[in-house]
Amino acid sequence: MKVLVLNCGSSSAKYQLINMENESPLASGVVERIGIDGAFLTHEPAGSEEVKIENEIPDHSVAIKMVIDTLLDDDYGVIASMDEISAVGHRVVHGGENFADSALIDDEVYNAIDEVKHLAPLHNPPNLLGIQVSQELMPETPDVAVFDTAFHQTMPAKSYMYALPYEWYEDYGVRRYGFHGTSHKYVAKRAAEILGKSFEDLKIITCHLGNGASVAAVDGGKVMDTSMGLTPLEGLVMGTRCGDIDPAIVPFMMENEGYSAAEMDNVLNKKSGVAGLSGVSNDFRDIGEEAESGNEQAQIAIDVFAQRVKKYIGSYSAVLGGADVVVFTAGIGENAIEIRANILEGLGYLGLTLDEEKNDMRGKEQVITTDDADNIAMVVPTNEELVIARDTKRLVEEAAEAAS
Amino acid sequence: MKVLVLNCGSSSAKYQLINMENESPLASGVVERIGIDGAFLTHEPAGSEEVKIENEIPDHSVAIKMVIDTLLDDDYGVIASMDEISAVGHRVVHGGENFADSALIDDEVYNAIDEVKHLAPLHNPPNLLGIQVSQELMPETPDVAVFDTAFHQTMPAKSYMYALPYEWYEDYGVRRYGFHGTSHKYVAKRAAEILGKSFEDLKIITCHLGNGASVAAVDGGKVMDTSMGLTPLEGLVMGTRCGDIDPAIVPFMMENEGYSAAEMDNVLNKKSGVAGLSGVSNDFRDIGEEAESGNEQAQIAIDVFAQRVKKYIGSYSAVLGGADVVVFTAGIGENAIEIRANILEGLGYLGLTLDEEKNDMRGKEQVITTDDADNIAMVVPTNEELVIARDTKRLVEEAAEAAS
Repeated sequence: MKVLVLNCGSSSAKYQLINMENESPLASGVVERIGIDGAFLTHEPAGSEEVKIENEIPDHSVAIKMVIDTLLDDDYGVIASMDEISAVGHRVVHGGENFADSALIDDEVYNAIDEVKHLAPLHNPPNLLGIQVSQELMPETPDVAVFDTAFHQTMPAKSYMYALPYEWYEDYGVRRYGFHGTSHKYVAKRAAEILGKSFEDLKIITCHLGNGASVAAVDGGKVMDTSMGLTPLEGLVMGTRCGDIDPAIVPFMMENEGYSAAEMDNVLNKKSGVAGLSGVSNDFRDIGEEAESGNEQAQIAIDVFAQRVKKYIGSYSAVLGGADVVVFTAGIGENAIEIRANILEGLGYLGLTLDEEKNDMRGKEQVITTDDADNIAMVVPTNEELVIARDTKRLVEEAAEAAS
Repeated sequence: MKVLVLNCGSSSAKYQLINMENESPLASGVVERIGIDGAFLTHEPAGSEEVKIENEIPDHSVAIKMVIDTLLDDDYGVIASMDEISAVGHRVVHGGENFADSALIDDEVYNAIDEVKHLAPLHNPPNLLGIQVSQELMPETPDVAVFDTAFHQTMPAKSYMYALPYEWYEDYGVRRYGFHGTSHKYVAKRAAEILGKSFEDLKIITCHLGNGASVAAVDGGKVMDTSMGLTPLEGLVMGTRCGDIDPAIVPFMMENEGYSAAEMDNVLNKKSGVAGLSGVSNDFRDIGEEAESGNEQAQIAIDVFAQRVKKYIGSYSAVLGGADVVVFTAGIGENAIEIRANILEGLGYLGLTLDEEKNDMRGKEQVITTDDADNIAMVVPTNEELVIARDTKRLVEEAAEAAS
């Protein structure tokens, strides 16, 4: 079975075609600047060079058609017929409280996604568009929605309720949902596998540290708490997102600067984080270089980022009553050796003692605590596309079984 | 030496006259509804019955004059002459970055308090008014300002900086300040005394749980982190304040409900917290009763409150690299037996094992963990007035020494 994984944003569409016999990608790529001048597609067949195709791409329909044509292309394509695509797995950002698992898409599911689009107005509409176009172009191929929020739906009320007027929960769905669920699920499960232990027996803290970043506390395979909230703004400090702040800063700065609610939201999401604090960039490599050459503000940004992760590890240890495993993943978690060391400094009281030699690597599945440490910290590179493809395969097969 | 402690709010003035020979209060009381119809003063001389005096009290000048007259009264007064008041200690909410200690008030100090009043627009102006009136009525008596923020000024940048545009820090002073400093300082020091250990050798987490609530991480007598931020809204869930939320909820709900920045600030500060979530009350006794009689929403409010404290204890353990002592104080911390038990549940991994029998008491200085627990949790009733009086005495004596 070959599964096409699609991740549609407002002006982009990422894809990966995965051969589920061996779970290896056949090709991956991205269409950028959809509906904007200068649109293009970059396509990389497994083991071959990247191809860049420039074209007019006015909408998602043209974009996804182009993806399929590219996959079928005589020169750099990887399949001979569209029929080889057995199913399409769509990343959907927000499932609200409707989805605790991925879902085979029918009208009901489509409408349930549409129903919560006010919770992710920038993400759910292009996700829905991707589903629509996919169904138009491949009407016989089943589509599956895989939600960023679903893995977190096991949280108890004491973790997901905010101390806000209760009507806001009832009327607008204001609660903690959490995001990056596919990544947290993948690395938590994979950590158990690597350690040769049962997922159900472990208390795991997963730290997804990329340009977007979040932490989850997973007890016996179930999320107990996570750092992102109603939206992906809460929690850790990110590339351009502020994470946790005094909420009173929002009205305070709106009054000071005369910002509208939308303008303020934009500053908190796009001009804050390590970029806003350092004044340098949202890229940790740039900030690290600046810090090394003596830029104090850059050093503070790195320290604030690491301190926040450290605090969440402490906090989620309390939620779990002690954690067995801490997992680092995504760009920074997999590659930033010094930041991992900075985060784990002083966490010996949790049984997490860093082995500097083991930690001196990037992008590998590896334990980074000492052999005699009571608990384990480790790196597990994430693979969200694979989780989407696996869920897609599972649901399509379950449906086929049920039908037969 | 007798010190008058004054705490002026926008329509109230609390006071306590303390005999510093034995640190015992001679009388305490409060003027309420200043500038509003139905104003009154309640006065309680130590060991006697409370007296209530109704009067027209148009402003703080009249209110403080009335306090002095009451202290001098033939029937329920406690001093014979105004000269017996050796100094006045004023609670001042916000010292910004100007004050890391209490300060003897002169023009420079007065102006420095005035300079940061934009950070606490509801609190600093009445605090300043109290100082002004006190100087007019008792021109020969020294005044001392004791700040809610001062004890927290030892925090490192990685704890006090937000990941927001750096200019907001430079232009508007947007950073974490922390509040309840006098209480955190008092109970942390007192805990060390009770345990017979040096304050400088201990890592202490102090939980001030009242209608306002905050946590501080204190290492060797220095605050390393605290939960309140630019304002007293951040951190724990409180009676009517939301504490930590996804900051994106602020613009989201402003758009949904058409609130102005000021209206939103009001909802977050006055209609949220356990009151907003439970829909019952801001009083934990009421909420507890409702929860016991089966009100699920009330139970959730209590659980969310306790879970947040638990998470901060975990988080600040990480900040401190492990804590020796956790202190509970203020209304809930001193008296809510079940909530303390709820908070400490599952924290055995931190060496904090509750002794249910020891915990079964209210308002006493007492260790509540088992004798064989690796670390200690304890109750220490707070006494903010005494800290203000002590600092006032110290600074007045230091000034007298310097002058001689």
